[in-house]
Amino acid sequence: MGFFSKDIKTLDDLFVHTLRDIYYAEKQIEKALPKMIDKATSPKLREGFEKHLEETKGHIERVERVFEMHGVKAKQVNCPAIDGILEEAEELAGDVDDKKVLDAALIAAAQAVEHYEITRYGTLVAWAKELGRSDCASVLAQNLKEEEAADRKLTQMAENSVNLQAAE
Amino acid sequence: MGFFSKDIKTLDDLFVHTLRDIYYAEKQIEKALPKMIDKATSPKLREGFEKHLEETKGHIERVERVFEMHGVKAKQVNCPAIDGILEEAEELAGDVDDKKVLDAALIAAAQAVEHYEITRYGTLVAWAKELGRSDCASVLAQNLKEEEAADRKLTQMAENSVNLQAAE
Repeated sequence: MGFFSKDIKTLDDLFVHTLRDIYYAEKQIEKALPKMIDKATSPKLREGFEKHLEETKGHIERVERVFEMHGVKAKQVNCPAIDGILEEAEELAGDVDDKKVLDAALIAAAQAVEHYEITRYGTLVAWAKELGRSDCASVLAQNLKEEEAADRKLTQMAENSVNLQAAE
Repeated sequence: MGFFSKDIKTLDDLFVHTLRDIYYAEKQIEKALPKMIDKATSPKLREGFEKHLEETKGHIERVERVFEMHGVKAKQVNCPAIDGILEEAEELAGDVDDKKVLDAALIAAAQAVEHYEITRYGTLVAWAKELGRSDCASVLAQNLKEEEAADRKLTQMAENSVNLQAAE
């Protein structure tokens, strides 16, 4: 992020900047997920996080492919949003003194992460189409679809088991 | 947020903590929206932000009502997630050197805010139900519904006009 350098002049600049933002975010999520796996107690939740770690690696590869297709360097820019979301998740996890309540908190934290990704990929898909890059839009839409599915799966897991156990 | 003080022992504690988190977030959004209104060029977008500022004030009142219904003090806790999302929005806005591209960036920023609220209210509604507080769940669900509607409206605005103009 170039601080107030006014270096974003076109929608294409904004698209590339936001692609670099989500690239940074995905890399941070890749680092955060193993810690969330360690903290989770429910085997289903651990398994869900493990699966999402694999998916996240795939998302990073797809974002790299879009950089290449669009002819720009695969670079990260700081993303205070994902830093804040992950910082809050870590602080909260440290505050919870019950394993089943911690599982409920971990799901909420993971859903905040998913929603950040959903909004950014939604925006990137729309901008790519506007820029006439339906090829890039279609690759980014695959990530969007998987993030939405991951979010729905977390909701189901929360409602069908984790919240029930946390409320016991 | 009590740093690693392990003061969240039950799902009820977690619910109250997260209610205080969204209370802080809504108050920060109330402060941020006037700046976004000032920066927006499209009259429709300004109008949309103005309407959402009014809605945000209503959301704050509803959250205060839930505190009261649940018999706990209306208090804020730091929310690094919304701080990060708003910090990123402000930095990005300072980076954009074209009014129509700035409008597209402002919509993306506002949608990141909406998605944070959607995920938190979604979680709070589920937890309230689990805790047998369907009365609180129903008040929180009204906020959730309005945030989802605001997000959809931003998508429409982006796709029908703002992105087209930004790509010109």
